[in-house]
Order: sequence, then C-alpha cells, then structure tokens
Amino acid sequence: MRVVLLNTGTELLAGDVHDTHLAFIAREIFALGLRIEERRTVGDGAVIGETLRELFSRAEIIFVTGGLGPTSDDITRDVAAELLGLNLEENDELLASLKTRLKVRGIRWVPSIARQAQVPAGAQVLPNENGSASGLYLKANINSKVSSPHIFLLPGPPRELQPMFHQSVIPILRSIIKEPLSVERRFYKIAVMGESIIEEKVGQKILAIPGVELGYCARPGEVDLRMIGPRAALEQAEKIVRAELGDVIFTDTDAALEEVLVTLLTAQKQTLATAESCTGGLLANRITNVPGASSVLLAGYVCYANEAKADVLGVDSKLIEQHGAVSEEVARAMAEGARRRAKSTYALATTGIAGPGGGSEQKPVGTVYVALAYETETKVRKLFFPSDRETFKQLVAQVAFEMLRRKLI
Amino acid sequence: MRVVLLNTGTELLAGDVHDTHLAFIAREIFALGLRIEERRTVGDGAVIGETLRELFSRAEIIFVTGGLGPTSDDITRDVAAELLGLNLEENDELLASLKTRLKVRGIRWVPSIARQAQVPAGAQVLPNENGSASGLYLKANINSKVSSPHIFLLPGPPRELQPMFHQSVIPILRSIIKEPLSVERRFYKIAVMGESIIEEKVGQKILAIPGVELGYCARPGEVDLRMIGPRAALEQAEKIVRAELGDVIFTDTDAALEEVLVTLLTAQKQTLATAESCTGGLLANRITNVPGASSVLLAGYVCYANEAKADVLGVDSKLIEQHGAVSEEVARAMAEGARRRAKSTYALATTGIAGPGGGSEQKPVGTVYVALAYETETKVRKLFFPSDRETFKQLVAQVAFEMLRRKLI
Repeated sequence: MRVVLLNTGTELLAGDVHDTHLAFIAREIFALGLRIEERRTVGDGAVIGETLRELFSRAEIIFVTGGLGPTSDDITRDVAAELLGLNLEENDELLASLKTRLKVRGIRWVPSIARQAQVPAGAQVLPNENGSASGLYLKANINSKVSSPHIFLLPGPPRELQPMFHQSVIPILRSIIKEPLSVERRFYKIAVMGESIIEEKVGQKILAIPGVELGYCARPGEVDLRMIGPRAALEQAEKIVRAELGDVIFTDTDAALEEVLVTLLTAQKQTLATAESCTGGLLANRITNVPGASSVLLAGYVCYANEAKADVLGVDSKLIEQHGAVSEEVARAMAEGARRRAKSTYALATTGIAGPGGGSEQKPVGTVYVALAYETETKVRKLFFPSDRETFKQLVAQVAFEMLRRKLI
Repeated sequence: MRVVLLNTGTELLAGDVHDTHLAFIAREIFALGLRIEERRTVGDGAVIGETLRELFSRAEIIFVTGGLGPTSDDITRDVAAELLGLNLEENDELLASLKTRLKVRGIRWVPSIARQAQVPAGAQVLPNENGSASGLYLKANINSKVSSPHIFLLPGPPRELQPMFHQSVIPILRSIIKEPLSVERRFYKIAVMGESIIEEKVGQKILAIPGVELGYCARPGEVDLRMIGPRAALEQAEKIVRAELGDVIFTDTDAALEEVLVTLLTAQKQTLATAESCTGGLLANRITNVPGASSVLLAGYVCYANEAKADVLGVDSKLIEQHGAVSEEVARAMAEGARRRAKSTYALATTGIAGPGGGSEQKPVGTVYVALAYETETKVRKLFFPSDRETFKQLVAQVAFEMLRRKLI
C-alpha cells in the first residue's frame, strides 16, 4: 500500500520548527510492512486541501500532521471536512473532557479551545492523552469510483502525536493492511568511524547479495548502516557485517550510545562520574536522558573555570600552570579527581577548545583531550575536531562514550 | 519567485535521521524576500529524477539536498546530470583538494571518494570547507521553451551545507532575484506561557489589521509568535504585541533563551553556577552551547545521588531525610550551596521526579522544585510537569532560565 505523509504548518516552511513526525511514523509503520514513499510539507491555508486532493490518487494511506490546535491558523480539521463534504459537529464528550483537562492543570478556559471539540460527521476520534487536540480517522468517499484513501489527521506536537499513534493509529492500520511487505530492515550503529571506511569494509560484499538495499547515514561521531531486503538475503549480509565490523557496532537497535552505556553499567553494577570542561554538561545530560540513569551516574562536575577544576576535582593548579588546562595531564587529573570525589567505578573527563575563541598556534580551536579513569588505569586520547561548537561537543562526547563502552564490553 | 526544496535520502524516509535543512534554508532566504512554498522528501533512486522533472514547471528555484557523498547510494549528482543531459567530468582541482583534505586529518584515502570530484559540464562548483562533498549550481536548459529553473545541489550534513549556503548560495541568489517580496517578518519568543493565553492577549487585535499573517508554534516551555506582512501593518501589530506581552517576550530574534541569559550576564559582569538533580546537566549543557559561556558559567554540579548533594553542595543530609530530596528545602539548599561553592553571583538548582520511575502518591512523577539563589534572596518555585523524560527536563530548564532572566532584566 502506498503511504504518504503531509506535514502542514507555515511554521515548518518558515523555519521556526523542525519536523520529527516523518522519522517517528516511518519507524512505527515499518514494523507493519509499510514504508513512506513521499513526504510533502505545505503551509497553513487552501494549499492543504489542494495537496490532499492531489495525494488522493497517489496513495492508499495519508497521514496529515498539524493544524488541529485552538488558534486561528489551525484549519486542517475544517479543510479536510470541506474536501470530503462532511459537516463539523460539536462532540459533547470531547468538550467535557477538554474542560476537565484544563481544570486539573489550573489552566484558564479560553473560548477558542472549544474548536477542538468539533468532529467531521462519521469520523473516528483518536483520543489525545497529552494535549487538547484529538486526532481524527476519516475514510474519504467523495468519489468512490476514483479512490478512497484512509486519512489520519494527527496533532502537531510530537509528545501528543506519538502516544496517540501507538494507542489508536497502529490498531487501525493493522485492520487495514492485507498484504504486508515481505522485506525486513536491519540497522547498525557505529561510533567514531567514518562512513567511507565502513563502506570499504562491507559495501561491495553486501551489494553483491541480490535484493539488499544498503544505506549509510553519517551524523557527528556516528554512522548508521541500514539494510533492507528479504530475510534470507539480510541474514547473509548480517554475517558480513558482523565479521567485518564486530565490536565496532554499538547497537543493532535504535538505542543511543548513552542508552547502551547505561544498560552495560547497570548490568555490571558499576557507576560513573563525569568531569566536563569543553563538553559543558553534555555527557551528563545525555546520560541522564536515559531512564534508570540515576543508579549509574553518581555525579557530574562541569568545571569550566580553572578554580572549579582545582576546588571540586582537586586538580593541582601547578599542573594547569605548567601544561595548560587543555593538556593530557589535566585531563588525567580531572578524571581521577572525579572518580575519587564521586567514589565511582569509572570517570570520564573532557578538556579542550570548543571555539570560536580561545585557540592558539600550539593548541588551535578543536584540540581536545578525553580521559577515562578506572581502578587500575587512566587512559587519555588526544583528538582534533575543528568544527562548530555544538558539533565539537557531540564529537567529543562520542569519543568519551565509545572509550567507556570499549572498556565495558 | 517560486521556491521549492527537495530533500533526498532513503535514510530520511526510513526515519533514521531528521531533516534540518528546511528550517535553515527558509530562514536564510527569507531575508532575500524568498519563501519556500513546498518541500518534498523522496528516497534515493529514480524518484529523484522524476520529482525534479515534476518540480521544473512549478518553481523557479529548486534546492536539492543530499546524495553527494562517496557511497553507492549517493546518486543526486548523476541523476541531475542525466536529467539535464550534461556529461560528468572529473575536476582536477577538486580531486587534489580532496586528497589534501584527507591527508591533513590523517584519514586514509578510499578510491570511492574520487566520485566527489565529478562535475556536470558547465555547472558551478560550490566549495565545501567542512566536508568532502562539493555543492553544484546548475541552470536547467533541456527545454528552454518550458521552464528553466535554477538548481542547487547541496550536501546532506548540516555542518557542511550551512557554511556553503552562506558563502556560495546566498551571493548567487542575490544575483538572481529581481523583485524581492514586499513583506517582512517579525518573530517573538516567549517562555513558560501557553499559546492559548498568548492568542487571547493579542490574536484578535492583530488579525484585525489587514494584511498580517499570524502564526504560533509551541515547543516544550516556549511559544514562537510569528507575523508576516507589509512593514506598515507589522509596525502597528508590533505595538500591540509589545503592549500586551512586554517583558514576557525574551527575544525578537532567533536567539535561544540560554543565549539571552549569557548576553545579559556578560553585559552585567555577573556569573552563574548550576546545581542539577532532575535536569541532569541540561542547564549547564545549554548554557555552554553559547559561545562566550566560559566567562559566565563558573561551575555546574550534577548531583543525582544524595551523597553528591551533601558532599559537593553541602546540603545537610538531615534536610533530605526530613523533607525528601525533592522538596522546597533541598532545592533552596542546593542553589545556595552551589552559589557558595562556585563563588558566583547567581545559582540555579533543580530537583524533581523525571520518571518513568520514582514517583509516589504525595510526589507523583512530574513534581519538581526550581530554585534561584542570589545575594539577598533565594526564590523557589514548585511545578508539575507530567511528561516524558526529555520533555520534562526541557520544561524545567525553561522555568529555571526564565526565573533568572526575569531577575536580570
């Protein structure tokens, strides 16, 4: 079945917000054998109706996101109802639940919120447990001779759309699908290795297997390797991937590197502390995004100022004078100091020059030392990442996490 | 001039990566009076050519992103050349600079990289200072009677595309544009206030002004208010916005809340420390994403474990026993302890239950205390954000930052 996604919202085209729905929906429906063939993004207004009409003949399943809120630019509900020739009717149950929702949260009732209780006649309401905009499922039948796609109208905010998708959309899709695709998908994530090197190791060998579609996606410090194809071919390909890359693969799920670390540390009943200069809290922040991090991360120290490095981590100020704050010696002392202070099994430390200022001829912007301390040893790596500030921080975090992961496996 | 964006990449449709180009390009070209009317996303393969051909008659300017890399799924260059009937030629200068680039970074040469030195005859090369894939500017002329759009082929990674856009694409666009749009754009960002409340304050009054297009975009803890229209109308609308919202607006640029804080603190020669339990480093991480943060953020303490709260921040363990780690008293003691330890002007502290575990009937998941300490006072706010873990962290960070901003203005 052909599936298309229509993201609506002038805020998307104006660049005020990033869409995350494509990625989310694509992954959710893949498990049902469905793939998105095309995504379009258009602004609020009549173009939504025109595009919907155009997509009617191109797809059997259409997801529309956005424009279900209470404000005047939220018109998806109205446009879809008009296009399908359906009247909007006020739904008493929805109206009552909207009023309760606001009361519980101590939010004042504003009359425009009532628009969200309007439902096109015959549409199925998809409850929203995390917001005020319900979703809608409609079966188009304005001209049954031409085509009759399944249309899902979904709210814009991801934290509202995602639970709704799990609870309401997936069950409806299951009832719609007759012949799931016979292809499967395998996915591997690799940290701190370039995509050209990865392709050199596995590319030609995998493409020699008929039916396997191979893709790479590079992000700072991370490459995803993606294979799609029939199961038998994928199993052959997987053998090549495992033989050539082995331990370099940190996951074959969509887990982030920090999730893998929390899982490994938890299983081994080990703990972690972080001492961050140039990453400024990114290590701790990523680790604490993982549920269960509280039993693993004992403490994080963000020590930008040299005084903080001395005060909290006990880094000898002579060491800083002698070698500079960005040096192997200070990275080592920071990691060892953090481990001692937090009484953790492991400690990671970063010190470097994120830029744009602060570089010198000897230590240009991008210079960084990453240290991993544990009972018997402290390892330090020197790296050079001349990048923008946020990319630099991500690259350094990837190196630090990968050093720890290698130690744990 | 009609502008469309075509994002290519099976990894986008497969959900393995999020697109950020739409937002970036939209903002860059708005200053030139250009707006993106439609964005399409398609996979790698023949569909790129089909979609490009379809868009020829719909647009005068076409941006294509992705598919210029060295791996076998990177075919945009080939597809575009074929469609336009242009031969690919090896560019010696490009080849030499690719070899130098890898050598400097100590990366091994892999033969497939040479594909990136192929240039369609007559195309203009757009240099890439942050990666190996050059961009290309082509003027289609396969059938000059029909249409002849300007086509830009740009690399997929944002850190490569963005500097290239500034350096090469913008100057070309300036030479293309004859009649810039007469509309302007104003943009306001507001933290810790819901969009319905904002609309109630300003919506009807602004929509009563002819010609003003009004939009809202809500993210966790933040709403963007966007107005597009002729200058005279926008100036009238701006007066309403300023009168009704005033200090609630934290910026009328695209600055993040943390950028506003770093600017305010720097100008006032004040400093900050953070003591984070439930936000786990997010505050420090966001602050240190801002260039110049090093002169403002003296230290950050991520104190998940109660021992760390006592050890580093000097929080009396009796206080934790008596009131619990998630309490007004502990939030206050954390902020005051961080301020004392770091010798900073201000300190922010967070302690709460991010979930999914750890909640109780008295203190359910989502309960959080945020404290701001300064010389004369310590303020504590109690909030309730029953959300997923990352949204919870963002909402808490917004409240903390907004408390500090209000104090600084």
